[in-house]
Order: sequence, then structure tokens, then C-alpha cells
Amino acid sequence: MEKKGIGKIALMLALTSGDIDNIKNYYESKNYVIYKGQAGSMDPKKIVAAIETAASREDIIRENYHEEHALYHSIIEALSGYCRGQVMLGEVLRSAGLTFTIVRGPLIEGDRSSGNWIAIVLYGQIGSPRRGFEHEAIGMGIQPI
Amino acid sequence: MEKKGIGKIALMLALTSGDIDNIKNYYESKNYVIYKGQAGSMDPKKIVAAIETAASREDIIRENYHEEHALYHSIIEALSGYCRGQVMLGEVLRSAGLTFTIVRGPLIEGDRSSGNWIAIVLYGQIGSPRRGFEHEAIGMGIQPI
Amino acid sequence: MEKKGIGKIALMLALTSGDIDNIKNYYESKNYVIYKGQAGSMDPKKIVAAIETAASREDIIRENYHEEHALYHSIIEALSGYCRGQVMLGEVLRSAGLTFTIVRGPLIEGDRSSGNWIAIVLYGQIGSPRRGFEHEAIGMGIQPI
Amino acid sequence: MEKKGIGKIALMLALTSGDIDNIKNYYESKNYVIYKGQAGSMDPKKIVAAIETAASREDIIRENYHEEHALYHSIIEALSGYCRGQVMLGEVLRSAGLTFTIVRGPLIEGDRSSGNWIAIVLYGQIGSPRRGFEHEAIGMGIQPI
Amino acid sequence: MEKKGIGKIALMLALTSGDIDNIKNYYESKNYVIYKGQAGSMDPKKIVAAIETAASREDIIRENYHEEHALYHSIIEALSGYCRGQVMLGEVLRSAGLTFTIVRGPLIEGDRSSGNWIAIVLYGQIGSPRRGFEHEAIGMGIQPI
Amino acid sequence: MEKKGIGKIALMLALTSGDIDNIKNYYESKNYVIYKGQAGSMDPKKIVAAIETAASREDIIRENYHEEHALYHSIIEALSGYCRGQVMLGEVLRSAGLTFTIVRGPLIEGDRSSGNWIAIVLYGQIGSPRRGFEHEAIGMGIQPI
Repeated sequence: MEKKGIGKIALMLALTSGDIDNIKNYYESKNYVIYKGQAGSMDPKKIVAAIETAASREDIIRENYHEEHALYHSIIEALSGYCRGQVMLGEVLRSAGLTFTIVRGPLIEGDRSSGNWIAIVLYGQIGSPRRGFEHEAIGMGIQPI
Repeated sequence: MEKKGIGKIALMLALTSGDIDNIKNYYESKNYVIYKGQAGSMDPKKIVAAIETAASREDIIRENYHEEHALYHSIIEALSGYCRGQVMLGEVLRSAGLTFTIVRGPLIEGDRSSGNWIAIVLYGQIGSPRRGFEHEAIGMGIQPI
Repeated sequence: MEKKGIGKIALMLALTSGDIDNIKNYYESKNYVIYKGQAGSMDPKKIVAAIETAASREDIIRENYHEEHALYHSIIEALSGYCRGQVMLGEVLRSAGLTFTIVRGPLIEGDRSSGNWIAIVLYGQIGSPRRGFEHEAIGMGIQPI
Repeated sequence: MEKKGIGKIALMLALTSGDIDNIKNYYESKNYVIYKGQAGSMDPKKIVAAIETAASREDIIRENYHEEHALYHSIIEALSGYCRGQVMLGEVLRSAGLTFTIVRGPLIEGDRSSGNWIAIVLYGQIGSPRRGFEHEAIGMGIQPI
Repeated sequence: MEKKGIGKIALMLALTSGDIDNIKNYYESKNYVIYKGQAGSMDPKKIVAAIETAASREDIIRENYHEEHALYHSIIEALSGYCRGQVMLGEVLRSAGLTFTIVRGPLIEGDRSSGNWIAIVLYGQIGSPRRGFEHEAIGMGIQPI
Repeated sequence: MEKKGIGKIALMLALTSGDIDNIKNYYESKNYVIYKGQAGSMDPKKIVAAIETAASREDIIRENYHEEHALYHSIIEALSGYCRGQVMLGEVLRSAGLTFTIVRGPLIEGDRSSGNWIAIVLYGQIGSPRRGFEHEAIGMGIQPI
């Protein structure tokens, strides 16, 4: 069976609409820490804050700058992918409503040789702040932690 | 049952490692045109060319500038998300090996009201041109066609 | 006589200081829809909103996401050209006062083969929010619609 | 009669398809130095070189770094506007064929108080290296000299 | 003895933590005008304003657009280097606390042949708005004036 | 006496023109690993490669992806600061000749609480590939390792 990368785990969790308990339990038994949440805003800093808050509250990262830095850069890379270039939402009159996943663990399932990594995935809608005038977007950032 | 967006269809196809015939057949019966291929290079233009060639050869886009323009912008947005910012590979000594999917059809499954759209997903590895020194990346671009 | 592109039509209209009725009437008889307005702000989203509002109110675009998306991307490309890189105004203490034109019609005058396109041109001043400390800028975005 | 800015002079010259001698003579009598040329490439550095070479050969800039720096930054700003964001052509499989204008003189016609400035305008086609699969683009950079 | 560039002078002044009077006096005797100040904010425009205000108040630039433009572009280049890419602070939930230096004079110490230039250096901390969760950053912009 | 940050150590070493043995020895006794080298090119990937090669050869980073990733991102951030925005040299007809420093150790001198970090500084000249038509530039990237 294929050994999944940390990114694919985070992507699958973000894309699964219903119950994620089975996938979550399986990968938690493989030394991953996993969280899935929601955020929506015209203000990029609120999305950054929602993810940072969840990561701290759920003890996914330890309370030191080394780990906070890895988390922060993963979020910014994910946002940059989500926005496809310049990180801007309300400044150019668009809004994002999204699901985020945080996954911490080996770079490749079962392979401890490359140390711990963190993957952030953002998946949701981006567009005009008017219902139906939006389309899907995705972004992922991966950093060693 | 949840109605999927064109982006989620393209993402699921890109993330599925094995046989995609079932998913492909299901969505083709729902008015989607679908293609999945591979590309790898240190040169962004080769990735653009691989996707454009596949889209023409498989008749996913018609031979006019209106459609070619939508395809091209979808590819560039997907590359921009994959690179998380500036579209550069070999110029900064990194390489990409990826699976791409092209999906054409309604923005949301079963909803013809918003016309035809095209989604391009790139999913694979990015990193140093040395085995094992790379991690996953994803990018998606969606345009009306 | 030279066949003008949709971009040149939008540029000429933006650069003409006085009465544009002659040019407007001529191109309206050639299947173009044309609008010229003013916007000024330190806030990019107000410029986006001014153009989107004008395009809706004047029925230049139909009330669907397909067309709104083309309009939006044309505006962002024009703003990106106007700002020459990152789309920022007040955030870096500068302001824009500009004329915008919206033109919808064939890519090249008299040529219906490539379908309908939209061109947005922004022409005006950019600079410090102090009189006389500013210079001209231009930006244009063109999308199939 | 309206006093034109250096940008509008450079834009009008770039947009005029036929003979520019009348406009050129008029503005030369108003202390402007003017040049119009052509460049086309998939390689941004060839466009930069074509404009720098013309500016030197025509004695529009003096042979010192102060002036060369102003010219260079004007060209890069114009290219950035032309490409609407990242300055890339062949790297992302697109090509540019364009007319450029170089204008040196007062920021506003007849007003010597703000010193000498240089404006570079690029106007032409950008797109796929295939005939008919391209649309117009414009970019302008203005710097004190 | 090595002839220093204007950038190295501005960098050394920004990096010196204690008294700068000796260095300042030495370079003022070599035709440089020098200023060192502090700024801190989550808002890029407040950093721009702090530097512009200091430059005017200290008569480092003359009250005309030619010089203000050179100052402004130097500041934006320095900020761009400080932020390493997109100029964003609070928008992506980060803050800057920094020392800035403004140096005006010859490009290379003792060499008047290339005219007057201005160098802006920003050196300080960037990071989360939480004590200890930040690291150093630097940025420099140089323009002819 | 002031406790220096890892960035200031790397900056001071890059700016010192003569013998750096005293500074190097002092910080090596404080648990820092230090290297200073030269690189020059119109090709960003050659600068990346020169620094990566030096870091491996001098055993500044261990031969694993975790550390190589931190090094790579530090280099790209430093290059982005050096180029003040888009990482481009020869593509836009400019060249860089620079000194680089690599410093590995505590974020702040004497403070082991925040773990190991790496700082890359680039300091040198950027400009036209013609002698005397260039000015100084600086860039720094800092990552946890």
C-alpha cells in the first residue's frame, strides 16, 4: 500500500466533507497530530490568527518561537497558494470562507528519518462577497518543525 | 448527497494514486471532461506546454483564443499556487515532479446556470533536484471558459 | 484603415481629455459597449467597487458569475499594471486619482471570430497624497467574456 | 488648452500607428527628447537591452550611472505593468511584440519646476507564441532623471 | 584605506547600537548628510511616514517632487527587502520594530562623479506581535537624487 | 554589553572588508558556526548553488532534508531582499557580485532557549553588467534549523 506524504494526509482531510474520525484515528496511530477547523474573512490576519490559535489551543505546536515560526511560515505559504500570488482579500474586494487542516508528523507516513514536519492546508471558496460569485481555491504550506 | 465543485473533482482526481476510471466515468456522465497526466521539469514553460498539449490533443478546449486564454490563465494560477508566490523553479535551483488534472464542466456538479468552467490542479513534489530533498506542493486555477 | 484592438480603443478613450462622443458612437456602431468614469482613493477596493458598480449599472456585464469573474480579473490586472507590481496604495502611503474605461466587444475591430472580450484601462495620477507630488500611471487588463 | 503630462505624451506616441513626425516635432519644440522603436522577444532581457541601446545611441540619456539608473528603473516598471505582475515571458511560455517610446523632459508640458523626468511606454501584444493567440498589453514607468 | 559605498555607511550606522557621533561626524565631513531614527508598527504606511517626516524635518531632501520621489522609492525598496517579498505587516499578523538610517551623498566615498544618491536602511525585528517571537530583518534601498 | 542577534553577527561579518578572524573566533567560542564566501553571477541559481555547496562542504548543515530546507529558505529570503522583490538577475539584464555569510547558532548570543537558527546574509553590488553601473544591495534570511 502507498505511503502517503504529510501533504496528502492534510489535503484528504480538508477535502472530506463528512466525518473524518476514521482517517484521523488511523493517522494519529501513525504518529500524526491532526486538527481541522473553519475560518472565513475578508481580512487575511483573521485567518492567520484562527489557525495559530487552534494550533496553540490543541497543543499541536509547543510554546516556543522555533515551532511558532514553522507554523507561521506554513500558514503564509498556504495563504499565498490560496490567493495565487499576492496575499490580499478585502483590499481587492474579495472574501474567503475555508476549511483548514493542520497536520504534524513525519514527512512521509512511517518514515521518521526526516524528522517532524507541519503541513497546513486551506480549502474553500474565494470571491466577491456576494453569494454564488465565488469559486474554490486551495493552498498548502509545509515546513520542518 | 453533497454536490461537489469542479475544484474538488479535479483535486480528488489528482490525489487518487491508483485507478481513476470509476470517478472519471461518474463525472463524465455529469457533463465533465476529464484528463490526468504527468509532468516534471526545472523549467516552468515545459509544465505549461505539457498541460496545453494534453488539453488540445484530448479536445478539452476548442481551437480558439477565447478558450486557450482561459486554459492558460488556469495553468498560471495553478503554478503560482504550487510555487507559493513567484513562479520559479530552476532559476532558484528547484525542480517539480507532478500530476496534473484538467476538468471542464459546470462550476458545481449538476448546476448548469453558471456556464462552463475549467479547473487545473497540480499536485506533486517540489524541491532540490536531489532525491528525498523535496516535499509536496499543490496548486489550482479555475477560470470561466 | 487600421483595425484597432479592443485595448487601443479603451486606451484612446481613457487618454482623450475632452468630449468622447464621436469615438464612443463610432465604436458603439461597431458592436462595442463603452463606459468612461472616474475614481480616486488610497484604498484599492474602492477603485474595484467603483468599476464593478459602473459595469453593472450600465449593463455592460450580465448578472452572472461567468461575466463578473472576467470583469473582476480585468480590473485586478489593470490595477496591477497601474501599481507596477504589488497592488498597494494607502498601505504604502500613496494615493490614486484616475479615469477608467470599460470596453466590451470583439478582440479586434470587425472580427467576431474570437468572441467577446472585456478591456479595462486605468489612467491617472499616482503618488503621495499631496498635490504636485504624483505622476501618471496606466494599467490595462483584458479577458474573454 | 490642456497641459499634457510626460506620460500622456509617451502613451499617445506609442498608440499612434502612422506617422508621428507632427507630434514629435511639437513636443521637441517644448523641450522633450523623443524616441519610438520596436522590440519583440520571449526574453525580457532582450527588450530591456533594445530600449537601453536606443536610449544611448540616440543620446537620450547621458553616459553616467545616475541617468542609466533612472532609465533602467523606468523600463522595469513598464515591463512590470506590461506583464501585470511578475516579469516573465518565455519562462511561462508567452511572448511579447511591442512598440516602445522613450520621452525625456518636464513632468508636465511647459512646467520646468519639477526638473527632468523620463517616461517609458511599452504597447503591443502579449500571448502564446502562436499567431492570433495574443492580446494587447501596456506598461509605463516614470522616473526623475 | 577602503572607500566605502553609501550603502555600507548607512548599514554600519544602523547596526551600531551605541553612540554614532564619531562615524556620523566623519562622514559628514565627507559630504554626507546622515540621520538615524526609530519606527515600529504593524502598519507599513506608518513606517513610510516616519522616514519621510524625518527626511523633511532634517532637510535631508529638498521640498520638491524630484527628491521626494527618490526618497519614497528608496523607502519602498528597503521595506520590500525587510519583508522579503510582499510588503505586508499587520495584514498577515506580523509587526516590525526597527532602526532606520537615511544617508545622502556620493555613491562611493570621495567620488563625486556619479552625483548624489540616497540610501535608506531598515534594521530591526520582525515577527508575531508577541515578545520573543520575532527575529531580525534588514532592508536597503538606494536611488539617485 | 549588548547581546547580539544571529542576524547582526552575520551582517557584521559580511560588512567587514578585511580580516574577520577575531570576530569569527569570538562567536565560534559562543557556539556559532560561521562561514564567509563570495559569489557573482547573472544567474540566481549559481548563487544558490555556491551557498549550498559551501554549507555542505563546511559541515554547517547536516546531510538531511530538515536542515537543507532551512538553509534553502534562508537563501531564497536573502535573495528576495537583495533583489528587493522579484528574484531576477540576468532575466532583466542585471548582475550581482556579492559576499555571503552563513551563521548557525542561537537566535540571540548566549540564549539557548530558542534552539538553533541559521542566518544568511548577502551583501554586494547589483546592477548593469558594466563596471561602475551598479550599487550596493543587502539581503538576509533567518530560519530555525
